[in-house]
Amino acid sequence: METTNDRLKKQINFVIEIDKLKNIYRQTLLMDGKRYENDAEHSWHLGLMVLLFSEYAAGKNIDLFRVIKMVLIHDLVEIDAGDTFCYDKKAALDKNEREQRAADRIFSILPADQSMEFRSLWEEFERMVTPESRFAAALDRFQPLLHNYNTQGAAWKKHGVSSDSVLERNKHIVNGAPELWMFAKTLIEDAVRKGYLRR
Amino acid sequence: METTNDRLKKQINFVIEIDKLKNIYRQTLLMDGKRYENDAEHSWHLGLMVLLFSEYAAGKNIDLFRVIKMVLIHDLVEIDAGDTFCYDKKAALDKNEREQRAADRIFSILPADQSMEFRSLWEEFERMVTPESRFAAALDRFQPLLHNYNTQGAAWKKHGVSSDSVLERNKHIVNGAPELWMFAKTLIEDAVRKGYLRR
Repeated sequence: METTNDRLKKQINFVIEIDKLKNIYRQTLLMDGKRYENDAEHSWHLGLMVLLFSEYAAGKNIDLFRVIKMVLIHDLVEIDAGDTFCYDKKAALDKNEREQRAADRIFSILPADQSMEFRSLWEEFERMVTPESRFAAALDRFQPLLHNYNTQGAAWKKHGVSSDSVLERNKHIVNGAPELWMFAKTLIEDAVRKGYLRR
Repeated sequence: METTNDRLKKQINFVIEIDKLKNIYRQTLLMDGKRYENDAEHSWHLGLMVLLFSEYAAGKNIDLFRVIKMVLIHDLVEIDAGDTFCYDKKAALDKNEREQRAADRIFSILPADQSMEFRSLWEEFERMVTPESRFAAALDRFQPLLHNYNTQGAAWKKHGVSSDSVLERNKHIVNGAPELWMFAKTLIEDAVRKGYLRR
């Protein structure tokens, strides 16, 4: 039988384990351009964007608490699987397999009930079927767009990304937050005009 | 009149402004001891701890969504006011004044309704009167304790903090999460035994 003490130990071990997310760096620079952003900071930023942009969610009366849970959890698998740059087609091939294995290990640190809850929130986020996960996924794409625009397209230039692939990769924002997609398209056009992004 | 476009611009400006929290460094080292933690990462970690430790909250049936909002917002004022090390008595003298001024500036970037909402969540957190804010404040103290213990007392040693002041400074954890305070006390005792913390 699981005692209270065993249970707390598992939870503490999980808190210690997920500290590693602070060392998983993304392709996005901070707004001041001085260093790369890590997944923990990115997830925090998304959490506040859920609150800030809730009025633009495509689904009405969605469960914002569940959206926040999803964005705080969504990148934990990258502790093992690493950050896969969203324009990297080769890395995308085995992304799912790497992340499933990571989820098996990381969520199993938790007591069974919480392990199931966290895993199911992560899977909901990945599937992008519910209005909640679509809104979460829209913010997860909108945030790096803002960072790229505000750093004169640093990550776009580094990887030679074109405006067509940025539009293609981000267009699902429209399913989660249509007004934010309208705004994102004007940013992308303006980025091309300013030379931050090639056509 | 505020148009939709004005409103979205204010919200975007706020998203850009709060990116600065990623450059506000704390006295706490990451669990691997390799660098200092910043406020954005710390706030993300607390967000997940709200979910993980909800069963230990002193108040029953508390609004966990509001607790998460508070922990994601609670350090934003440090963008202007800086991180005040909790054992620094001199810096504590004008902490409140510095933070009120910061709140005035930072929250005023938002549309009026959201500015009021965020400010009121921050003030609720600071006052530690409601069960929600007591739980949030308990986690805000419990997390750096875990970090200090797991880095062999790095911040405690650097600042020559004694176990008495650690007990004194953290004892309000009992008001928000009594079981976590029990656990914290065993960590503190063990830290003294292992030489991480002076008596």
